[in-house]
Amino acid sequence: MAAEMIIDHKEKANALLKADADKILKLIKVQMDNLTMPQCPLYEEVLDTQMFGLSREIDFAVRLGLIEEKDGKAILDKLEKELSILHEASVRK
Amino acid sequence: MAAEMIIDHKEKANALLKADADKILKLIKVQMDNLTMPQCPLYEEVLDTQMFGLSREIDFAVRLGLIEEKDGKAILDKLEKELSILHEASVRK
Repeated sequence: MAAEMIIDHKEKANALLKADADKILKLIKVQMDNLTMPQCPLYEEVLDTQMFGLSREIDFAVRLGLIEEKDGKAILDKLEKELSILHEASVRK
Repeated sequence: MAAEMIIDHKEKANALLKADADKILKLIKVQMDNLTMPQCPLYEEVLDTQMFGLSREIDFAVRLGLIEEKDGKAILDKLEKELSILHEASVRK
C-alpha cells in the first residue's frame, strides 16, 4: 500500500496545481470574454495575487520533491502567456 | 523504504512550513527591533504578502493530506499574534 501512497502524493500534488492553474485560467477567460465591458480595475491585482499564490504552492511542491521544477515552471509559463495575451487585448481595446 | 518516504513527506512538509514561518517571524522581529527608526512604509505590505504566501502553502499541504488543518492554523495564528503585537507597538510609538 505504501508505494501507491507516495505516487498518490505526487499525482495529487500535480492534480491540485493543475486545478489551481485552471481556476486562474478561468479568471483570465472571463476577462477576455468581457473586454468590451468596463474593466474591473482590480482584475490585474487579483490575477497577480493568484499567480503569486500559485507560484508559492509550486515552489513548495518542488521543495517537497513532489513535482519537477521544470513541470512547475511549465504551469506558470502557460498562464503567463495567457496573461500577456489578455493584457495586449485590453490595451488594444 | 516506502513507508519511511511517506512519513518523510509529512515531516518535510511540516519542517518546510515551520522554516517559512520562522522567516516571517524574523521579518517581524527586525521591525520590532527597529521601531525607533523610521518605519519602512512597505513593511506591512511585505508581511501581508508573505503571510498570504504561507497561507497558500499551508492550504496546499492540508489538501495534500501532509499536515492537519489545525496544525496549519496554529502556525498562522502564532504569526498573527506576533503581527498584532508589532502593529500595536508601532502605533503606540
